[in-house]
Amino acid sequence: MKVLCFGELLLRLSSPGYNRLFQKDSLDATFCGGEANVAVSLSNFGINSEFVTKLPNNDVGMAAEKSLKYFGVNTDKIVYGDGRMGLYYLEKGASQRPSKVIYDRAYSVIAMADKSEFDWNKIFDGVDWFHWTGINPALGDNVAEICELACKAAKSKGIIISCDLNFRKNLWTSKKAQSVMKRLMPYVDVCIANEEDADKVLGIKASDTDVENGELSFSGYKKVAEEICTTYGCEKVAITLRKSYSASRNGWSGLIYDGKTGECVHSTEYDIQIVDRVGGGDSFTAGVIYGIIKRMTDKETVEFAAAASCLKHTVEGDFNRVTVQDVKSLLQNGGNGRVQR
Amino acid sequence: MKVLCFGELLLRLSSPGYNRLFQKDSLDATFCGGEANVAVSLSNFGINSEFVTKLPNNDVGMAAEKSLKYFGVNTDKIVYGDGRMGLYYLEKGASQRPSKVIYDRAYSVIAMADKSEFDWNKIFDGVDWFHWTGINPALGDNVAEICELACKAAKSKGIIISCDLNFRKNLWTSKKAQSVMKRLMPYVDVCIANEEDADKVLGIKASDTDVENGELSFSGYKKVAEEICTTYGCEKVAITLRKSYSASRNGWSGLIYDGKTGECVHSTEYDIQIVDRVGGGDSFTAGVIYGIIKRMTDKETVEFAAAASCLKHTVEGDFNRVTVQDVKSLLQNGGNGRVQR
Amino acid sequence: MKVLCFGELLLRLSSPGYNRLFQKDSLDATFCGGEANVAVSLSNFGINSEFVTKLPNNDVGMAAEKSLKYFGVNTDKIVYGDGRMGLYYLEKGASQRPSKVIYDRAYSVIAMADKSEFDWNKIFDGVDWFHWTGINPALGDNVAEICELACKAAKSKGIIISCDLNFRKNLWTSKKAQSVMKRLMPYVDVCIANEEDADKVLGIKASDTDVENGELSFSGYKKVAEEICTTYGCEKVAITLRKSYSASRNGWSGLIYDGKTGECVHSTEYDIQIVDRVGGGDSFTAGVIYGIIKRMTDKETVEFAAAASCLKHTVEGDFNRVTVQDVKSLLQNGGNGRVQR
Amino acid sequence: MKVLCFGELLLRLSSPGYNRLFQKDSLDATFCGGEANVAVSLSNFGINSEFVTKLPNNDVGMAAEKSLKYFGVNTDKIVYGDGRMGLYYLEKGASQRPSKVIYDRAYSVIAMADKSEFDWNKIFDGVDWFHWTGINPALGDNVAEICELACKAAKSKGIIISCDLNFRKNLWTSKKAQSVMKRLMPYVDVCIANEEDADKVLGIKASDTDVENGELSFSGYKKVAEEICTTYGCEKVAITLRKSYSASRNGWSGLIYDGKTGECVHSTEYDIQIVDRVGGGDSFTAGVIYGIIKRMTDKETVEFAAAASCLKHTVEGDFNRVTVQDVKSLLQNGGNGRVQR
Amino acid sequence: MKVLCFGELLLRLSSPGYNRLFQKDSLDATFCGGEANVAVSLSNFGINSEFVTKLPNNDVGMAAEKSLKYFGVNTDKIVYGDGRMGLYYLEKGASQRPSKVIYDRAYSVIAMADKSEFDWNKIFDGVDWFHWTGINPALGDNVAEICELACKAAKSKGIIISCDLNFRKNLWTSKKAQSVMKRLMPYVDVCIANEEDADKVLGIKASDTDVENGELSFSGYKKVAEEICTTYGCEKVAITLRKSYSASRNGWSGLIYDGKTGECVHSTEYDIQIVDRVGGGDSFTAGVIYGIIKRMTDKETVEFAAAASCLKHTVEGDFNRVTVQDVKSLLQNGGNGRVQR
Amino acid sequence: MKVLCFGELLLRLSSPGYNRLFQKDSLDATFCGGEANVAVSLSNFGINSEFVTKLPNNDVGMAAEKSLKYFGVNTDKIVYGDGRMGLYYLEKGASQRPSKVIYDRAYSVIAMADKSEFDWNKIFDGVDWFHWTGINPALGDNVAEICELACKAAKSKGIIISCDLNFRKNLWTSKKAQSVMKRLMPYVDVCIANEEDADKVLGIKASDTDVENGELSFSGYKKVAEEICTTYGCEKVAITLRKSYSASRNGWSGLIYDGKTGECVHSTEYDIQIVDRVGGGDSFTAGVIYGIIKRMTDKETVEFAAAASCLKHTVEGDFNRVTVQDVKSLLQNGGNGRVQR
Repeated sequence: MKVLCFGELLLRLSSPGYNRLFQKDSLDATFCGGEANVAVSLSNFGINSEFVTKLPNNDVGMAAEKSLKYFGVNTDKIVYGDGRMGLYYLEKGASQRPSKVIYDRAYSVIAMADKSEFDWNKIFDGVDWFHWTGINPALGDNVAEICELACKAAKSKGIIISCDLNFRKNLWTSKKAQSVMKRLMPYVDVCIANEEDADKVLGIKASDTDVENGELSFSGYKKVAEEICTTYGCEKVAITLRKSYSASRNGWSGLIYDGKTGECVHSTEYDIQIVDRVGGGDSFTAGVIYGIIKRMTDKETVEFAAAASCLKHTVEGDFNRVTVQDVKSLLQNGGNGRVQR
Repeated sequence: MKVLCFGELLLRLSSPGYNRLFQKDSLDATFCGGEANVAVSLSNFGINSEFVTKLPNNDVGMAAEKSLKYFGVNTDKIVYGDGRMGLYYLEKGASQRPSKVIYDRAYSVIAMADKSEFDWNKIFDGVDWFHWTGINPALGDNVAEICELACKAAKSKGIIISCDLNFRKNLWTSKKAQSVMKRLMPYVDVCIANEEDADKVLGIKASDTDVENGELSFSGYKKVAEEICTTYGCEKVAITLRKSYSASRNGWSGLIYDGKTGECVHSTEYDIQIVDRVGGGDSFTAGVIYGIIKRMTDKETVEFAAAASCLKHTVEGDFNRVTVQDVKSLLQNGGNGRVQR
Repeated sequence: MKVLCFGELLLRLSSPGYNRLFQKDSLDATFCGGEANVAVSLSNFGINSEFVTKLPNNDVGMAAEKSLKYFGVNTDKIVYGDGRMGLYYLEKGASQRPSKVIYDRAYSVIAMADKSEFDWNKIFDGVDWFHWTGINPALGDNVAEICELACKAAKSKGIIISCDLNFRKNLWTSKKAQSVMKRLMPYVDVCIANEEDADKVLGIKASDTDVENGELSFSGYKKVAEEICTTYGCEKVAITLRKSYSASRNGWSGLIYDGKTGECVHSTEYDIQIVDRVGGGDSFTAGVIYGIIKRMTDKETVEFAAAASCLKHTVEGDFNRVTVQDVKSLLQNGGNGRVQR
Repeated sequence: MKVLCFGELLLRLSSPGYNRLFQKDSLDATFCGGEANVAVSLSNFGINSEFVTKLPNNDVGMAAEKSLKYFGVNTDKIVYGDGRMGLYYLEKGASQRPSKVIYDRAYSVIAMADKSEFDWNKIFDGVDWFHWTGINPALGDNVAEICELACKAAKSKGIIISCDLNFRKNLWTSKKAQSVMKRLMPYVDVCIANEEDADKVLGIKASDTDVENGELSFSGYKKVAEEICTTYGCEKVAITLRKSYSASRNGWSGLIYDGKTGECVHSTEYDIQIVDRVGGGDSFTAGVIYGIIKRMTDKETVEFAAAASCLKHTVEGDFNRVTVQDVKSLLQNGGNGRVQR
Repeated sequence: MKVLCFGELLLRLSSPGYNRLFQKDSLDATFCGGEANVAVSLSNFGINSEFVTKLPNNDVGMAAEKSLKYFGVNTDKIVYGDGRMGLYYLEKGASQRPSKVIYDRAYSVIAMADKSEFDWNKIFDGVDWFHWTGINPALGDNVAEICELACKAAKSKGIIISCDLNFRKNLWTSKKAQSVMKRLMPYVDVCIANEEDADKVLGIKASDTDVENGELSFSGYKKVAEEICTTYGCEKVAITLRKSYSASRNGWSGLIYDGKTGECVHSTEYDIQIVDRVGGGDSFTAGVIYGIIKRMTDKETVEFAAAASCLKHTVEGDFNRVTVQDVKSLLQNGGNGRVQR
Repeated sequence: MKVLCFGELLLRLSSPGYNRLFQKDSLDATFCGGEANVAVSLSNFGINSEFVTKLPNNDVGMAAEKSLKYFGVNTDKIVYGDGRMGLYYLEKGASQRPSKVIYDRAYSVIAMADKSEFDWNKIFDGVDWFHWTGINPALGDNVAEICELACKAAKSKGIIISCDLNFRKNLWTSKKAQSVMKRLMPYVDVCIANEEDADKVLGIKASDTDVENGELSFSGYKKVAEEICTTYGCEKVAITLRKSYSASRNGWSGLIYDGKTGECVHSTEYDIQIVDRVGGGDSFTAGVIYGIIKRMTDKETVEFAAAASCLKHTVEGDFNRVTVQDVKSLLQNGGNGRVQR
């Protein structure tokens, strides 16, 4: 079983500790990206995963590729060319001060890529699952087209397609997102979203939910999932539910809705003291894909995905550096934090 | 509108992270000081601010000045001379272990300055607001006299004068403080204090308050503020209210009392997961000055000041590295800590 | 009054901050060990303490010895020889992610030591108290025998003997532990244990306690202590009670049972925001020894020990870098965390 | 006397120590740029200096501005707008391994600026000297045009104009450079160049010089300077002469040619153990401008500039953090490195 | 063309900068090993390389494997089992103070491996070149036997075998080394050695050479190489020649002797300002293998190998993080260290 | 044999790496002092050494004491009292940029100590050698008097007295130094000096020596030593000879003159690539004392002292962290820097 993820690999430049950006004269420098995070997490779970993107043909691009190889992610089909590495600056929040992301990903080598650079028939050779996110088409019409071509090729080969809606208001407007994504959604078998994505990307709003206040309604989200399945023919919809008490503490859980049975299961909710919450959603997605691949029940899957992504919040960096054993240990022992000797 | 702050600029040598002093063989080295903190915060709010002090004429003094220039604080009138930089060692506390400050500010170049070194008529040219704190006169009778000369010069020019009582038991006794400060208070238009200052510096005690236990009484503080206004003719008194649950978690709010109307307004109380609490009071003071300069209502001012100083607690260092936009964002969105992308 | 501790000195290699092991390419490198932690803590309390072990005769061993000298622990009787330093890798947990310890202490120079290398009659010259832990005999039958010889020599000289049961499942099985420790327990005057030690090491189970869920029963532990005293003739038994809410937050208290009077006193329970919990039990032991040496009542002793070890949790590293004054300050002021200026 | 510098402010992301790029997962992050380096150096010499550029209106741009304010450089006329900060990655070389620069400055906010954004008549108010470099027009035709408008405005106000040719082969070809720079050179009063600039930017080649081999000919360079003065009417030409023995050790000197007298003076040559050589040329330029402003003789000027830039090579970062006193001390005492107590 | 390397993967714990061991309380922690260094360097040259070893089945072992994957080295055939990771402590020298290595590799998981754990017929499937070093058999008779079985299997499949003699006096005596290695040498096609290896491992001494004084004789080494070829039937012998002026500066070159033609070619000698010299020999070996694989002439090969390993000395860590392009650039431009922009 | 050193213990705050002071916002923080450096070095040589001073009774003073205990220096007789820790800021030089020391040691607790605080009869109990330096009396007349009392007490007990002249022009003038030191010199048995001390402190000038130019005359220094012995009755005079080529490279040697025989022996001269030269002279002094105690010949002593202090220059910090074995290894193998495995 091989999962291929496609998207942008970014350089994340984050202020060390709880300093504001450039308060110190160094930045932590790691590579990441919504789709790469999923590929890494799956590889850490023992799944054969591959990542495809376009990188600049210089030391930065090569270091980015190596950062994935480190986790055993297959990178053979990455395309290289002239251009720049997209990046973002991150300032980690604390208590009432929110984390802050400043994108510098415009004009990146992937955002300016041409569809001719990706031969999807070749790329999908031996692939069983294709994962992408709503960030891709937000990078530009060319990338949206590349995504569409990828989806078509995948569909024609019977590959399962999953998509995390992942709305980014700095990359495109809700209106633009809807015009593009409604066209791409019919290819999607497994849809992942958070509390605001469905609204912004698909125009499907959880009626009685107030995101800003962290008030989440399980029944409201079930209806959202149902509507997604009905409208776009998805098999499953998975949604993450985040209660933002502060930048230091979040409530975190997830749900999975099955389009055929209409059943919706909710995971345990974790009360998390946050180390680093960026990549939390991606780690949930990886958990969902893992559960489905391993033929877990939806309940098992959503518990696995919620536990895996709970652990992600306790680890530095975007990548979820946890193994299946780590996740199972949390599921079995609970999060009491006793030292493992 | 130009605000001038006068006081000592100190070198803060703090143990990195949550290590005890000298547990590591390096110290974080930044510059700060009660009045400088206010100048920096105001400059970050876009207010034209200036800082006056005396610094040693060596690389340490020059680096101290540069640390203010970085924030755009005007430093043209800083006096240089032979002598040493005052400093303090800081060990940051956690949970039940309190933060610890060890002063090494005796014999500093400013503590040994002569009144002839400051030509207040020149210094106050173009200044609209003068801010100082009770730390100044605590440095020595010479500095107390310099302060008094400054107050007289400011008063004669119609400059608004604010003072943060800021009692420091390591610098002087309550008795000495009262003998000096009662002489200086009549110059003060806006008085800022915390829960113990009024008692120790002015002998005005909030009847039903137990500082050590963190039990704070709003009505008690209103009476304190009222008495300050009545006794010394202040226009406004602002008080910070800190509930010390532990070194890691504090409740934090403020109030403003108007001497003319007798009205007292209390801010929202923030439950803060602390990153660095030193400079918290100064950031509140800067918020109060900002609110008054911008002709906010007292309620708006105290909410702005409380929010600004809440954010200070989430940032490393004495300086409040937040903008008006950061404060407004907290006031509008609450402190839910959602990532700002 | 001189306390001698015997055991292994280990190199602790811990991942910096909340990074997973080898996520960063550096490791914090400090020395520690259950018995050395007690010796250091006692020395910090002003007690004349000594540490005996065997170290490798290279720069690593010599640095280990120096790390104890730093705190004034007497190291004159440490034995040097060919061999390797035992070590362990530590990954600090956070929230639901537990701390993780990977031992690499097999084949260490002390684990392979011969009984002829320790002349206990000489070593115990001038010593009033001998402390060791259940880790020693777990290192191997040779070390168990060395321990027994030490106990015999100490007993014959009228030296008080304390032992922390300290079960380590990676070093030996519960069955093996019981077979060895039941032989050594009759030498012990003061026995220290945590919630699982008595069960695993002595086969004495607190009937109505569920360690994993953090449910602790005071009455259950009293019975355990009583049984230890009855069976092995101990004078006092001290037990630490940890409620593991998460890797970031623990409830922490202790109790002392007096074998003669049958009285059992429970300390204040601290709700701790954890900085570093490794060495927490050892710091409690040092507090108990200190209280007994200083002829405190059991209530005073357990409060001192609980407060001292509460502070340990707020300090980086295994060693408890707190003074008697620090502990008294917590006992008097509570853990409100007000800045000490 | 006020010197205004115009150019791009860049974020420099350099690998710490002698690690290759991304060998460590952090990068040293400082701001710099050929023209900003000159402004900072002049301010450190006590000269009133100002810097004009366009910056992105986010935390990165604001931190960049603050990094100049730190040194007292006036930044009031900096323009802000939507866009990205230009940056470059730096890997510091050692011994036979050369330093490596990877530019990511395309599409930066200044490279995409419009001429209407800079009102040169206003900007040059009160300015006596205007400095720019050949990097500006290399950023794009729009910036070349902005440069030309600036030169015209400066000329019309009788402002002295200096230009460092600063050829960058990654930004434009020699051919393109010549076509643009030959148009701009007639405005230049003081021209600064290194061993390859005159050739690549102006097509003037030092006949008997082999740059790659570090063979430099004084007489050859005198002819180059003479030709520049003759062709473009410059008053003075200053040239840096670098002998690259290795990435760790360089020979370094400079010369100044006077267009009127035809005299050419050569400075002392320094044999430098390199700490950081980036910004070396800019620090020489600042020394030349300082010498001319202070009405030094050409010999005094070139010695001052060579000594100042020698010191730059011994300091981390692009900025030359040395004072006039530091330079004079080197000129008087030589570089014997005795400790200054 | 696929090269397989077999050996021990070690954890290198080095004191940061030029501090003595444990002067700082952290250690730089990277993975390495004589054979792994070759595999990494070859992979960086674009050669398909694989590494086989036995690792402990815990987070340390898994991180070690990842450190190879990072460079694209194939690790599929690594064996996992209970045990410990071998390690060494490194203190980097400077000037007259030599670097110091303290081994703690006894009892490592590979040193205690059984021959049954390695199925060489499977392992060598698709392999063209097998590289090992004299460190392997020094780990113990079991590993020596594993090596012999590997050589036999390789030979039977027509795989080229290279061996770096790599004498380590802390692992075995010269006498023991000779008894074992003389048995294994007949399998070796390409032999690599340094100035003392041939003497200690094979008893072949360069007559007129004084290693301690750094006096190296080219003709002496030619004779050594000749004797190796004659005695053991090697096709080629490559020797590194190090002139140790100090811990900070070395002369470095290499030679290659061809067993058939009897020709011996000497490379350029580099005068190196050292960043990190550990792994220097391994990087030379990788260069030799690369040259032979790419069918370079011996002169080209030895120049490539010498240049590659010269660059290694300028990079932190054991691994040679340089590409073919980096090496060619040094060969073409010389080591003048001009900035590459 | 027990050596007691008396002097000030200072906090050294040094800028990390080759950054200028406060270029980074942290400072390396270690303790040191001319006399403490000697005590530490002797303890590292296995000599029983003790240090006496007065320290502030706070965490800073206690950490300072611990820094000596770390090396096994006896600190039992250190006096504690109210006051401040003396400190100095250090910026490490490189190439032509000299190291820079900014003292902040005025008003330190020892500089304000009273003679009544030191009971020299008690302090010298069991002591065989007393070492102090010319820095002590430079701290103030009170400390000069304490020194004189110490010398008298030592003399009366037959204790050998050594003194390093150690002139510090920031602490006193040459004139003042001569007036005080000429009074104290008659107590001195072993006098240590560098090239400028004898001139500034005793008015004895090496006729044909030019310190600034690094021109040192062996015969000139022999005469200086001779005159010191003749005038003050010293038994031996040891002089360090430093050739300052740059801040990165020094020539270093020493000589010893015997007052009785009139023989003068010169050590090997080391060409040193400097890591940290502060404390170089103190490490030479410790070597001299060690040689005399161990009854080496003068030639052996001066070679040991020169080699020991050569190694000091290759180690970070003031303390000479080398053992007798390290020194002997340099003497035997020379400084070729071969890795010690």
